[in-house]
Amino acid sequence: MSKDLIVIALGGNAIKQADQWGTTEEQLRNVDVTAQQIAKIIANGYRVVVTHGNGPQAGALLIQQEEAEQFVPAQTLAACGAMTQGQIGWAMQNRLSYHLKKAGVMSPVCTVVTQVQVSDDDPDFKDPSKPVGPFYTKDEAKQLETEKKYIVKEVKPNTDKPWRRVVPSPEPIDIIEKDSINALLSSGAIVIASGGGGIPVRQMPDDGLEGVDAVIDKDRAGFKLAQAVKADKFIILTDVENAYIRYNTPEQKALKEISIAEAEKYLEDGEFLKGSMGPKIEAAVRFVKWSKKEAIITSLHKALDALEGKNGTHIIP
Amino acid sequence: MSKDLIVIALGGNAIKQADQWGTTEEQLRNVDVTAQQIAKIIANGYRVVVTHGNGPQAGALLIQQEEAEQFVPAQTLAACGAMTQGQIGWAMQNRLSYHLKKAGVMSPVCTVVTQVQVSDDDPDFKDPSKPVGPFYTKDEAKQLETEKKYIVKEVKPNTDKPWRRVVPSPEPIDIIEKDSINALLSSGAIVIASGGGGIPVRQMPDDGLEGVDAVIDKDRAGFKLAQAVKADKFIILTDVENAYIRYNTPEQKALKEISIAEAEKYLEDGEFLKGSMGPKIEAAVRFVKWSKKEAIITSLHKALDALEGKNGTHIIP
Repeated sequence: MSKDLIVIALGGNAIKQADQWGTTEEQLRNVDVTAQQIAKIIANGYRVVVTHGNGPQAGALLIQQEEAEQFVPAQTLAACGAMTQGQIGWAMQNRLSYHLKKAGVMSPVCTVVTQVQVSDDDPDFKDPSKPVGPFYTKDEAKQLETEKKYIVKEVKPNTDKPWRRVVPSPEPIDIIEKDSINALLSSGAIVIASGGGGIPVRQMPDDGLEGVDAVIDKDRAGFKLAQAVKADKFIILTDVENAYIRYNTPEQKALKEISIAEAEKYLEDGEFLKGSMGPKIEAAVRFVKWSKKEAIITSLHKALDALEGKNGTHIIP
Repeated sequence: MSKDLIVIALGGNAIKQADQWGTTEEQLRNVDVTAQQIAKIIANGYRVVVTHGNGPQAGALLIQQEEAEQFVPAQTLAACGAMTQGQIGWAMQNRLSYHLKKAGVMSPVCTVVTQVQVSDDDPDFKDPSKPVGPFYTKDEAKQLETEKKYIVKEVKPNTDKPWRRVVPSPEPIDIIEKDSINALLSSGAIVIASGGGGIPVRQMPDDGLEGVDAVIDKDRAGFKLAQAVKADKFIILTDVENAYIRYNTPEQKALKEISIAEAEKYLEDGEFLKGSMGPKIEAAVRFVKWSKKEAIITSLHKALDALEGKNGTHIIP
């Protein structure tokens, strides 16, 4: 019997925690903890595709690119995305291979450098909203606006450096490397793909694909990935065991199992934090609508239990 | 009939020329020229695995990492290698897919983040010889020696900054992701792998693989890759159409076809520049000894002609 195929989307904290400096060693240790849990899932009979965020890594890389600009040119945001796919993909495939071997599973693990197509017409290109890279003073921000044509916004008022560059966060349309990802899955490999939401590319008139300065939401791209591999389940891992309504109030309530209709109602009511739980629920809903199967939101350490129905927030048709 | 499988090793100049600043756009343009030639080879019926150097890209990244060290931590050399695999692999798969489509070839192109195993006992760990990253004054170099335990050497005497960090360049033993590379090839994909000589890893007592601060020669790793995929031909592309003896003398002579014995004699006689043509001839000889088939050294624009026997230096059994 063919085993269930799961797409697992990892948050940034699976790779670098907020209070960490971010050395390679620290990140490998974090990834090791994550990989151990994913190896358990695989050892329990599931086939797995892993996708992951890259916020802290891309942020660090953008600072490095900027600091050295008088010596070597900064690469584009698309190229930096590609670099973090190599960086995080390597760490993940290295630690996941290790834990699989320990668990007696001999599947190879492979990172696929992944482009994700977006549309020029996406409304987010007109009003970019995703902050990236370092924080600036107003003067610095205005200078970058002039010199580099950055779009800058004041994102943290009343701080020393309240301004940041913002870039579009367009909708993912297609996973360009889906054939290769599927070929690897068919061969029995565990695949890491579409890191950081994928390298955003747009279709050019000459039929080529061009990298764009944008950041695709990794959970939305995770859904497109789940579609591309025809996943049986889509599981989004985050800091908390469940999604909640009335979050951080005395009436806070963990959601165990909710229908698409309930999830959409809660989204409409603003129950979930924008830029945090909101996009996860949205991506989960998209998957359930498309697959007529369930999506799960939970924490890393509850992932296996959640797959077996014991834990987590389950979004069902 | 199954078509010949070729491993093509590209030099750094295929991606960034020495007189270029190194922006993403410049590198994409260079890669585009290279990809167009490789697409021609594929359109002529060959199956292809591409490997490439990363010297200029890793160099730039090391400078960026160093310049920003007070803000974000520099990643290890292994992690930087992984990052350049993402960066260059993306550029190559993007431009190669484009030229393949133009040529009517629908093969997917996939970059595999590749680890290459090395041995702790490699003599190069005792006396590292490969310069990496920025140049330093003697004082700066000595400070890095103390603070970061770098091994530094004076590599360009009588200049402002004659010192550089040197790292080991150990022999590649095994391509860790070979199963995934072969699965992709079987599915009909064109594969980009082992960029920059691969991410060097060593076997740990616990059976894991650990990244090491080293740089593997990309032509040597290219031979191990050719072995791993059972290539029919190994072609090393460089600046010149042929290897020469008595190079840069009035008696300079282009080599058309040489046996292993002749190649080894010329190597012994010091006919080939160390760190340049020397390692290419060595890697080619290793391939021919192992495969009993030919290896070719030539320039990008003569590659297809060379494959058809019209050009280049052919090393034969």
